[in-house]
Amino acid sequence: MNVAVIGLGYWGPNLLRNLYEIKSCNSLIACDKDESKLEKIKLRYPTVAIEKNYRNLLTNDRLQAVVIATPVSSHFPIGQDFLKAGKHIFLEKPFTQNTAEAEKLLQLAEEKNLITMVGHTFEYSPPVLKIKEIIDSGELGKIYYISTSRVNLGLHQKDVSVIWDLAPHDFSILFHWLEAEPIRISAMGKDYVQKNIPDVAFINMEFASGCIAHVQVSWLSPSKLRRTAIIGSKKMLVYDDTENIEKVKIYDKGVDYKDPETFGEFQLSYRSGDVVSPYIKNFEPLNMEMKHFLDCCGTHQRPKTDGYNGLRVVKALEAAEKSLRNNSKVMEMK
Amino acid sequence: MNVAVIGLGYWGPNLLRNLYEIKSCNSLIACDKDESKLEKIKLRYPTVAIEKNYRNLLTNDRLQAVVIATPVSSHFPIGQDFLKAGKHIFLEKPFTQNTAEAEKLLQLAEEKNLITMVGHTFEYSPPVLKIKEIIDSGELGKIYYISTSRVNLGLHQKDVSVIWDLAPHDFSILFHWLEAEPIRISAMGKDYVQKNIPDVAFINMEFASGCIAHVQVSWLSPSKLRRTAIIGSKKMLVYDDTENIEKVKIYDKGVDYKDPETFGEFQLSYRSGDVVSPYIKNFEPLNMEMKHFLDCCGTHQRPKTDGYNGLRVVKALEAAEKSLRNNSKVMEMK
Amino acid sequence: MNVAVIGLGYWGPNLLRNLYEIKSCNSLIACDKDESKLEKIKLRYPTVAIEKNYRNLLTNDRLQAVVIATPVSSHFPIGQDFLKAGKHIFLEKPFTQNTAEAEKLLQLAEEKNLITMVGHTFEYSPPVLKIKEIIDSGELGKIYYISTSRVNLGLHQKDVSVIWDLAPHDFSILFHWLEAEPIRISAMGKDYVQKNIPDVAFINMEFASGCIAHVQVSWLSPSKLRRTAIIGSKKMLVYDDTENIEKVKIYDKGVDYKDPETFGEFQLSYRSGDVVSPYIKNFEPLNMEMKHFLDCCGTHQRPKTDGYNGLRVVKALEAAEKSLRNNSKVMEMK
Amino acid sequence: MNVAVIGLGYWGPNLLRNLYEIKSCNSLIACDKDESKLEKIKLRYPTVAIEKNYRNLLTNDRLQAVVIATPVSSHFPIGQDFLKAGKHIFLEKPFTQNTAEAEKLLQLAEEKNLITMVGHTFEYSPPVLKIKEIIDSGELGKIYYISTSRVNLGLHQKDVSVIWDLAPHDFSILFHWLEAEPIRISAMGKDYVQKNIPDVAFINMEFASGCIAHVQVSWLSPSKLRRTAIIGSKKMLVYDDTENIEKVKIYDKGVDYKDPETFGEFQLSYRSGDVVSPYIKNFEPLNMEMKHFLDCCGTHQRPKTDGYNGLRVVKALEAAEKSLRNNSKVMEMK
Repeated sequence: MNVAVIGLGYWGPNLLRNLYEIKSCNSLIACDKDESKLEKIKLRYPTVAIEKNYRNLLTNDRLQAVVIATPVSSHFPIGQDFLKAGKHIFLEKPFTQNTAEAEKLLQLAEEKNLITMVGHTFEYSPPVLKIKEIIDSGELGKIYYISTSRVNLGLHQKDVSVIWDLAPHDFSILFHWLEAEPIRISAMGKDYVQKNIPDVAFINMEFASGCIAHVQVSWLSPSKLRRTAIIGSKKMLVYDDTENIEKVKIYDKGVDYKDPETFGEFQLSYRSGDVVSPYIKNFEPLNMEMKHFLDCCGTHQRPKTDGYNGLRVVKALEAAEKSLRNNSKVMEMK
Repeated sequence: MNVAVIGLGYWGPNLLRNLYEIKSCNSLIACDKDESKLEKIKLRYPTVAIEKNYRNLLTNDRLQAVVIATPVSSHFPIGQDFLKAGKHIFLEKPFTQNTAEAEKLLQLAEEKNLITMVGHTFEYSPPVLKIKEIIDSGELGKIYYISTSRVNLGLHQKDVSVIWDLAPHDFSILFHWLEAEPIRISAMGKDYVQKNIPDVAFINMEFASGCIAHVQVSWLSPSKLRRTAIIGSKKMLVYDDTENIEKVKIYDKGVDYKDPETFGEFQLSYRSGDVVSPYIKNFEPLNMEMKHFLDCCGTHQRPKTDGYNGLRVVKALEAAEKSLRNNSKVMEMK
Repeated sequence: MNVAVIGLGYWGPNLLRNLYEIKSCNSLIACDKDESKLEKIKLRYPTVAIEKNYRNLLTNDRLQAVVIATPVSSHFPIGQDFLKAGKHIFLEKPFTQNTAEAEKLLQLAEEKNLITMVGHTFEYSPPVLKIKEIIDSGELGKIYYISTSRVNLGLHQKDVSVIWDLAPHDFSILFHWLEAEPIRISAMGKDYVQKNIPDVAFINMEFASGCIAHVQVSWLSPSKLRRTAIIGSKKMLVYDDTENIEKVKIYDKGVDYKDPETFGEFQLSYRSGDVVSPYIKNFEPLNMEMKHFLDCCGTHQRPKTDGYNGLRVVKALEAAEKSLRNNSKVMEMK
Repeated sequence: MNVAVIGLGYWGPNLLRNLYEIKSCNSLIACDKDESKLEKIKLRYPTVAIEKNYRNLLTNDRLQAVVIATPVSSHFPIGQDFLKAGKHIFLEKPFTQNTAEAEKLLQLAEEKNLITMVGHTFEYSPPVLKIKEIIDSGELGKIYYISTSRVNLGLHQKDVSVIWDLAPHDFSILFHWLEAEPIRISAMGKDYVQKNIPDVAFINMEFASGCIAHVQVSWLSPSKLRRTAIIGSKKMLVYDDTENIEKVKIYDKGVDYKDPETFGEFQLSYRSGDVVSPYIKNFEPLNMEMKHFLDCCGTHQRPKTDGYNGLRVVKALEAAEKSLRNNSKVMEMK
């Protein structure tokens, strides 16, 4: 495979490093308009080719696929250019800056029979995969609700809100676990530090199954929280990504409601049992993600996190942001 | 002072115990329609008088004040009876089961020149008072937002939702700290275990100052959380009531926005400093609360948590519950 | 049963309260030379008889057993008086202030065919019992070593060292779990605050099985630690008594040594598995302890924590203190 | 400066990386007898020269200093060779495998007027430096005792005990903070997994000042602990290196003893105040360490962690190991 990485800012070098270590990736090009970034790459990876203008790559016949890690506003034009040039594309999250752009890319890729993939890295991370396994096994029972926080004193973005910056992670994880998209979204938030760029948001979602989810994102919190609670009818699970060892805990706790046998009788029984923190094998999600992209490009198989996966997250982000900017008005989806 | 305690279920005995230990309370009557409860009290406090029917107390001339800890649905009729009989009343939280009842009691009390007080105990607790002090000192700067969780696998109530059961604590604390009531409330929640009795709710509130608050309450969580984060323009504070020692932590962290001097320049500076957990003197809030009630009855001074304080919490509970039952529709207050 | 409680300082009232709630204990006498303490008891438990001088109880024919919670220096004389008077005795921990006293009491009790019991309350506590069960099941494999800390800014005693104050808990727990006494003891410690009363000690113990144990006790630590780690050949266990929920955790972790098949080969395999926090039923240890004492008095059965149990802890305390006062000299036991 | 790194196993590459990033280090040689390791270095750092046999470097006239990260048993012969060849040496911790070797190296270096430095990296780490500052400021008062744990399920060494593997860290930190060496050392430990290689040790130390220290090291613990408590006469400090944010906490707690004015009076007063976690600037200790070595080589200034610093730690390790192998016999130092 011959692959190029476009955009070598904060995240691009990580993607490059992982591609560099994958055997099937026999030729790599690094591309950024900032020459100082290319120089750093050259020093670190002498065998990687460099290119300042991505347009020069469009006509490179040996190039089969590109991995795009530029600011979100350029995802669409750059992605479109490469699809038109017949290259498979991987786009960092969020996939595009709105639904229309995502749909156009997907249509183009279908016409050209090309792979589109989105960088929802958490869907390749060990704890998220383990939790998917646990949910699918039925161990938690029916999923009642999920509450998640992704907050800390974070790097404020100057072009996108905290919703577009942080919520893609939570949305992609949730939709993956539930295998569903929300039917209703609302959000409350504010722009405290920079005018017109919300830096805190409380997002509510409802699913057709009756499940509800709450997502709290903020760049303005004193301590780092990455905590998700999944409440099921049988058991409950807590996933704390700031924990080093016991990231996932399953609580054998619950409350059962018995239909009153005689009118008016109120019967609940509470269960309390062991807490189990399952062993989770450690591996690098980015490595798995990049390998999966190369595999899909080679076999023309649909990626686990394909463009449609990217689109549904963009749709939800768009709705949440709209609600936030309209006094938390509830958005009915579709 | 001659005082009666009406209702000796879960909470009443705590109120009785505190009154018993206060010197100025020289005569106590315990009242409950369940005789077995009265017998227990008699064994434990031989000097306390007992009474099965609260109506017999209405004509007791020596009785000056009553402390009512019955189910919320009886707060209004019992409270009204005692006000009509010329007694000061203390009502457990929530004050009443709706706004109309609260307003009637307040009107009656005013006509009769009697004290009404509500059992917002947290407003007498050491960490809540300490935080009020810190906010008022200006140390945190302008309050941006407050996020709070009060969840665990809790005792499901059969008559009221989790909002009416748990949120009175958070609402009374928030309104006390901010010295304000919300101008807009919405809530998402569900009734998973018992039909028609919501057991989880995510409540959003906006204040005229621009501050927003999020309150999460649930009877269905695997582990106990009592965590409040207050984000100010200068510092941030975390109050974790499940911590034994460091309940309150102040983070000297923040981000400053400088107006760009030249067009388009983006300038933020991040501060990171010490974390301080102030020493908090320990005392029993209930004892302070009961003493304050007796003092106010004696001096005819307005209690810190008077009936109007109870009313504004009831109003907010009512709005949150209504929103929850109407697909999270945003409720404009007043 | 007719029982007297002698000594109503810090701990005695807890013993009295538990005896008061036990049905089989139909008559109770509270005894203390300080009248103000007796008055408090009278107010709280009107049906309990009071007595200022314990000697007046020696000739009380109806009295069958006494529970002694006086300072340790009076354990021996008071215990001896009651044994001579034909009463069963329960002595708070530590059993006596030296080995000789303990042996005299045990001999006297045997001659008189009376019950002696020591207040090693932790041997009746839910987590300690659960851990004993787990050890006995073989789940942890052979016990390699145990390390335990019992420290915080504690109440300094004016008559006994931190070893005699805090280590009785750890010693009784350890000897119970291991069903063995140490063959070798040493201790390092110092008297920082009060001359000649050590307030910190690091105690080492070796057992015939090859197991070693370390016990750290201090009145001079900034935060409370009650942490015990048990390292076995198969699994490891951590018991943290300051945790509210997950007090006990079992780690399915370990390292296996394979005998090298060829000379010089070094083979270790590391295992890492789930962490399980078993559900532990909650009950009051003191209640179980007092019931057990009354049962043993009634049936003449040997208590689980009989005087010999008390003696072996006193022996170990004596050795540890002696080592501490002799530059950590190792004491060979027996 | 022209520098060579000898030994590219686990730790050597970290030293190389840091030297590589230091501007004053204009020429670097990597040396290891294992060619596969050299190839990896070549790929990663194309400008670094490689050498298989360290003896070939002895006659390299341009080479001024060597950084040695080979197994401890080769520290002495390799170090001696380079000193004889007139090169400054940096030896990883522990400095040598016994006191005699360390003394020979020091004598040789003095004769040749060369720099010796030991890799006590923690003495360059932000929290350890911050704590030294705090101790020196007098904020904690007189240091009473220090208790430290460095345990987890770690990599078992096949040639040295857990004392020689882990305790160098704690010893170098403690001696640095206290600016003193112990006058008395003892240790209890065992070899559970590999015959004759102790994998757990409890080490006691006494200092001339009256301060005592306890160091617990183990490769056989279920969870990682890196916790140090420093108890002073005025305040107490806890350093938890597994914490991400609040690594250091200062507790304004203590107990004061007042000399009794009248005979027999017992007076203690307990203080309880704020807990402060000071902000600690983050930097890479290894970078500072390597820079300091190069600086000292250039200026012939004595390194902060010179060979004498290495020697005093080796002395203490030797004594602790000897005590462990002699039933915890107390070793008087000199």
